[in-house]
Amino acid sequence: MMTVPVFTLGQLAERLGATLRGAADKAITGLATLHEAGPDQLSFLANPQYRKFLAETRAGAVLLTPSDAEGYSGAALVVANPYLAYAQLSHLFDPKPKAAAGVHPSAVIAADALVDTSASVGAYAVVESGAQIGAGATVGAHCFIGARTVLGEGGWLAPRVTLYHDVRIGKRVVIQSGAVIGGEGFGFANEKGVWQKIAQIGGVTIGDDVEIGSNTTIDRGALADTVIGNGVKLDNQIMIAHNVQVGDHTAMAACVGISGSTKIGKHCMLAGGVGLVGHIEICDGVFVTGMTMVTRSITEPGAYSSGTAMQPAADWKKSATRFRQLDDMARRLQQLEKRLAAVTPAGDASSDA
Amino acid sequence: MMTVPVFTLGQLAERLGATLRGAADKAITGLATLHEAGPDQLSFLANPQYRKFLAETRAGAVLLTPSDAEGYSGAALVVANPYLAYAQLSHLFDPKPKAAAGVHPSAVIAADALVDTSASVGAYAVVESGAQIGAGATVGAHCFIGARTVLGEGGWLAPRVTLYHDVRIGKRVVIQSGAVIGGEGFGFANEKGVWQKIAQIGGVTIGDDVEIGSNTTIDRGALADTVIGNGVKLDNQIMIAHNVQVGDHTAMAACVGISGSTKIGKHCMLAGGVGLVGHIEICDGVFVTGMTMVTRSITEPGAYSSGTAMQPAADWKKSATRFRQLDDMARRLQQLEKRLAAVTPAGDASSDA
Amino acid sequence: MMTVPVFTLGQLAERLGATLRGAADKAITGLATLHEAGPDQLSFLANPQYRKFLAETRAGAVLLTPSDAEGYSGAALVVANPYLAYAQLSHLFDPKPKAAAGVHPSAVIAADALVDTSASVGAYAVVESGAQIGAGATVGAHCFIGARTVLGEGGWLAPRVTLYHDVRIGKRVVIQSGAVIGGEGFGFANEKGVWQKIAQIGGVTIGDDVEIGSNTTIDRGALADTVIGNGVKLDNQIMIAHNVQVGDHTAMAACVGISGSTKIGKHCMLAGGVGLVGHIEICDGVFVTGMTMVTRSITEPGAYSSGTAMQPAADWKKSATRFRQLDDMARRLQQLEKRLAAVTPAGDASSDA
Repeated sequence: MMTVPVFTLGQLAERLGATLRGAADKAITGLATLHEAGPDQLSFLANPQYRKFLAETRAGAVLLTPSDAEGYSGAALVVANPYLAYAQLSHLFDPKPKAAAGVHPSAVIAADALVDTSASVGAYAVVESGAQIGAGATVGAHCFIGARTVLGEGGWLAPRVTLYHDVRIGKRVVIQSGAVIGGEGFGFANEKGVWQKIAQIGGVTIGDDVEIGSNTTIDRGALADTVIGNGVKLDNQIMIAHNVQVGDHTAMAACVGISGSTKIGKHCMLAGGVGLVGHIEICDGVFVTGMTMVTRSITEPGAYSSGTAMQPAADWKKSATRFRQLDDMARRLQQLEKRLAAVTPAGDASSDA
Repeated sequence: MMTVPVFTLGQLAERLGATLRGAADKAITGLATLHEAGPDQLSFLANPQYRKFLAETRAGAVLLTPSDAEGYSGAALVVANPYLAYAQLSHLFDPKPKAAAGVHPSAVIAADALVDTSASVGAYAVVESGAQIGAGATVGAHCFIGARTVLGEGGWLAPRVTLYHDVRIGKRVVIQSGAVIGGEGFGFANEKGVWQKIAQIGGVTIGDDVEIGSNTTIDRGALADTVIGNGVKLDNQIMIAHNVQVGDHTAMAACVGISGSTKIGKHCMLAGGVGLVGHIEICDGVFVTGMTMVTRSITEPGAYSSGTAMQPAADWKKSATRFRQLDDMARRLQQLEKRLAAVTPAGDASSDA
Repeated sequence: MMTVPVFTLGQLAERLGATLRGAADKAITGLATLHEAGPDQLSFLANPQYRKFLAETRAGAVLLTPSDAEGYSGAALVVANPYLAYAQLSHLFDPKPKAAAGVHPSAVIAADALVDTSASVGAYAVVESGAQIGAGATVGAHCFIGARTVLGEGGWLAPRVTLYHDVRIGKRVVIQSGAVIGGEGFGFANEKGVWQKIAQIGGVTIGDDVEIGSNTTIDRGALADTVIGNGVKLDNQIMIAHNVQVGDHTAMAACVGISGSTKIGKHCMLAGGVGLVGHIEICDGVFVTGMTMVTRSITEPGAYSSGTAMQPAADWKKSATRFRQLDDMARRLQQLEKRLAAVTPAGDASSDA
């Protein structure tokens, strides 16, 4: 059974360096939204649209900015950034099991693999020749660690993660279940209509503090490595093709696909379902909205979009039909302008009127 | 080797409560389409566009509505809904192996996990502390069942399914290979350009009679649970983010992505590749066509779409170029209308003509 | 540790039937791009946009066409198709470990499964009743091979591949980690709002020389088999629904989704993120650009597209708003044309001018 963690409000204030308003010995057993929190739970106000729930909340205490705290009479931890404070405290209440150090007797470890004594290797994991598992790292059940692959210290692999051979992973990297790192990139030469395979002889290099979501795939390089920078966060079911480079602290939401050899800058954000063609460059500080098709390089920071907005299907059919006539419409519009200019010589409607 | 099931037409009629037309002792060994069925196979006519194949079919018998049966002289099982009747009989001819009850000797089961004696646990499965496997449930080879996770009675997990800790699954739930339930949701707080992880302390609650396709991922909640209602059907490679709620009997085709905290009603249908942004609500009875980008809440039942229709690439390039000029075109159109009104004061072409 | 392969330039020339220009005994230890190659590495010039790097390359030798070789003074292997030559040589330098023949003691093999003595079966693999593993085939660690499934000679399964029961795979097929072949297709009959499952009693047939990427899913047929032709190449995270047929030598980039019963011709190319609705036919020789939504059959070879081109988000919002007004705009345009014709009877701007 799960044991419930208990902290006093005073302990939490101390951890955060927060200003405590209320009883320091009040017990807090969990976190919840303003709407759902009970009297033993701590909540937070980060998104202004939820301010309306503050007056009604049953939370034992609330993480608030100084200005939001002014209008609130209940117990509070006053901090500069309540969302960040919530992120910091969340780990105290995480029920995620912690694996004990040591290698499960069923794991198959190559004789020349180096597994740090403080690392944990789960049931039925397979660690191949020359692989290295760093200090304090966790390898979940059913993981496969290929030859010469390195998992840095403090890394955490959920059950069932595949790392192919020659993958180099930095420190404190978290990889969710079903992710595949180092699969063979999609490279073929066409010989008279038949595809001839190109061996993918590069590897994958992943920096420190990277997160990789469930069933995300990162292919190995064709020649040089595919490279993921420090602090990069990848959600689930993302596809990173061979020889892509992703800059530090870039985040991608689920179902993004990046084609081969594309280079993405630092501090970018790609929303869900975005697709990038291959061999382009995205500069630092770019935000791409959901499901956008990126077909060319981006050289200026800012937000970018494509697609069309949702409509009732019957209306959409009309728009979609007209879309195919757009070039014709544009030409006719131009023609009309010319013809109207001919009958109204001044060529300016306002002066005519 | 696979043994072929054999039923008589009379037995099948009895199971369905169908009106039998033809020899009750005719042997049926399988199901097939009208086009492909042989004399020992049963077929069905559900989609009117296949009616043309009825006259030519070699099928031993056909599932037909009363009206379709009128025009057909061969053996038939007459039912109100042939497609539903086909669905019901299909299970009789399913070659899917049935696992015997019992725990494979290679499975690793925590001492305090509760595995019902009528359940089947496959080779190399791992069941962690406090997990529960219900009566008649099947856990395939290489499955991972996390701490305190519950799989209800009659559930069926294909080989290699990951259920993280604290996942609650109802009765008769079917999950295909590679699915990941309860992975850590994508939650980070940004601190001066660096992403700070938010522990995902909620779980996942899944109702009864749910189906989950291959490599689909359902993330655990940030605070409260991600919730999938009763009778929900999810195809392959679907992504459900943290704190999403899906209403009863909603179906989603492959490659749908639902962003965090979005709430979907009952009896909705999302076609393949649809994407929903986070924090919106979709009411009951909504149908969204393939690859639509849903960027706002939907409050009325009905069908919704976005995107553009396919064209030859050369034509499409012209349309796409004009799309970027659309606002300019609209302004010029308005301008033309004003100018033309100035030269044709009545402002109405038909009365002018 | 990895041993580095060494070949002389003369040996490589002989393998390719290339014209050697330079010292036959020069040692080559790897392949790299023109930009990155060192003096012990072989490079190649295939894409004209990289010709600029040829003058500066430090490569020990370069694969060149006769015409490119004219302008280059360094060592070269002169061939008709440098990219194809690179593909052929790439396998010599592939660090991918080769598994030894034999069954790992931890693998669970059914008594009546047929595993060729020259095949390799990895740790914790499970091979079920009646399955067959051909000569020289490799089954990676944690693979699951279902009942009666056949993996042809020379096949290679990465660690953690699931093949359900009754899957027939040809010769020399390569499948990456996380792929799921033969999962249950998405078939349900609706009975008063509740989805009733249709057993998926067909299988999957895959031809020779097919490649299947990481986390790609190919569902089994509802009645007959899902069919993948010879030489088909599928990238990662592709979804092939039940009863799809894919013609020989067709290639699909990552994240493509094909809905049920759709038939795709030979020698087609689908770029990343393309989606096809069900029950359509695509003829031979079709190229579909990235993220295109294919909603109808294609009967003429050629290139096809849909979607809109990326814009800065603020501009895009205007375009997207206007898209919803397109039908209205088209009607107003037509109206204007009529009205202008009324005031300029000749109806032709150029003759008016």
